[in-house]
Amino acid sequence: MATRSIGSDAPEKLFPDITLEVAINRQLTISMSPQTKLYEGKAKILYTTEDPEILLAEFKDDATAFNAQKRGAIAGKGEINCRISAYLFDLLAAHDVKTHFIDCPAPDRMRVKNVKILPIEVVVRNIAAGSLCQQTGLPVGTVLPQPLVEFFYKNDALGDPLLTLDRLLLLNLATPDRVEQLQVMAKRINQILSDFFDRCGITLVDFKLEFGLDRQQQLLLADEISPDTCRLWDRAEVDPDKRVMDKDRFRRDLGNIEDAYQQVLKRVLETKIPTKNV
Amino acid sequence: MATRSIGSDAPEKLFPDITLEVAINRQLTISMSPQTKLYEGKAKILYTTEDPEILLAEFKDDATAFNAQKRGAIAGKGEINCRISAYLFDLLAAHDVKTHFIDCPAPDRMRVKNVKILPIEVVVRNIAAGSLCQQTGLPVGTVLPQPLVEFFYKNDALGDPLLTLDRLLLLNLATPDRVEQLQVMAKRINQILSDFFDRCGITLVDFKLEFGLDRQQQLLLADEISPDTCRLWDRAEVDPDKRVMDKDRFRRDLGNIEDAYQQVLKRVLETKIPTKNV
Repeated sequence: MATRSIGSDAPEKLFPDITLEVAINRQLTISMSPQTKLYEGKAKILYTTEDPEILLAEFKDDATAFNAQKRGAIAGKGEINCRISAYLFDLLAAHDVKTHFIDCPAPDRMRVKNVKILPIEVVVRNIAAGSLCQQTGLPVGTVLPQPLVEFFYKNDALGDPLLTLDRLLLLNLATPDRVEQLQVMAKRINQILSDFFDRCGITLVDFKLEFGLDRQQQLLLADEISPDTCRLWDRAEVDPDKRVMDKDRFRRDLGNIEDAYQQVLKRVLETKIPTKNV
Repeated sequence: MATRSIGSDAPEKLFPDITLEVAINRQLTISMSPQTKLYEGKAKILYTTEDPEILLAEFKDDATAFNAQKRGAIAGKGEINCRISAYLFDLLAAHDVKTHFIDCPAPDRMRVKNVKILPIEVVVRNIAAGSLCQQTGLPVGTVLPQPLVEFFYKNDALGDPLLTLDRLLLLNLATPDRVEQLQVMAKRINQILSDFFDRCGITLVDFKLEFGLDRQQQLLLADEISPDTCRLWDRAEVDPDKRVMDKDRFRRDLGNIEDAYQQVLKRVLETKIPTKNV
């Protein structure tokens, strides 16, 4: 498995002469840089770098579901999700969507722009699944007449509750203009990703996005785009369990989780990135 | 406790020569009319009458909370809630708000127009309390910068979930025009009721409304307006438990439930209805 090359603008001291072998030895890698752990989330650890504008994200194999009430690990997930995310961030950048992604100094590590994450999870849905079905009674698999963009309050203590527009504004989580911008960006990203996954033989059912603001208050797509954050259904499968290629395999104890994640990575890497001119 | 007089247009056969004594004997009352039970809800029973355009609502003492997971009874609640509701429907009618209320043939019974209830609970909030606080982290008692109108899906099986505008429209629960109309009516009702309760020395914290459509597709305020459906805080009390004059006393086991409901009725009846010209 080849590593992604480091961008030419990578700070020299961060990962000098980095190779996959070096990167695999995390302790060694960490000891080679002045980075300190900034934040450890459920799926990633964020480290500072020598450049205050840049952070290093380490993707973990840890898996959680149902607001961390269910915990486990998916072997190889960190690397798979990092590589899929990197690929999709590149794809989006090719379509002029601004993201926090810089490059991958190791297969499970991503250098990203240091942004202030908005406390909003933006969920885009093409097909009814998950909490939408539980909360509305819509049958799983209902094709929505148009993509649905929803906002959830990124707050573990409250269980990431659904936000109406009024609640979002009441909590001062974003301005009306920012909400409008998020909706436009989310729909654009959905269009690009849906088209791409379609080429991979995968249906993009729904997905969760996070956004952040850089120092210039520019809105950047952040976090990750992976089988942890997307519902992905194999288009060649009609069986409602067999078709699942995402974290629902973990949530619903469907087995073959690693295989499914690997299969997504394989299809993503094999599929030619469409450029905006295609 | 005096009964409300029967409107002059009451069908003769329904409750001939009805008195409080007769009304108290429900079996007798029921046997005197051709009514059949149409629907039994958590707080009311609806009966048909000889006029297909008119239903009879019997207010029950039964109390439920947390989607009927908690059950009990509040002595006298049926009559209290029926009388408060009748009074407030009259008040709203005096302000040109169209309601389903016709009259009360007995203290715990209300003749109402037969409407098709919309499967939407419209909640108006002036002060943060209840699920808004649980789902947003806003402290109980936070005065909202402006009244918040929220929609919930009236669906016990799903636990009456919060609806975004998009979900409401996706489920075809109402048209965008109807939603707009509901918002306007809810805000108007809030203004009238808040002003009135203020005169009663009571803060109208929040309340739930239901609406229905008559045969002419006219939108009417339906259901009830009572301590079961409103959060009411005694303005003379600052203690967060003592001030509660509504079903939260039952939900939160605060005791003195009957006294609180009686106190609301007493203050409502003693307070002069402001007319729209005042």
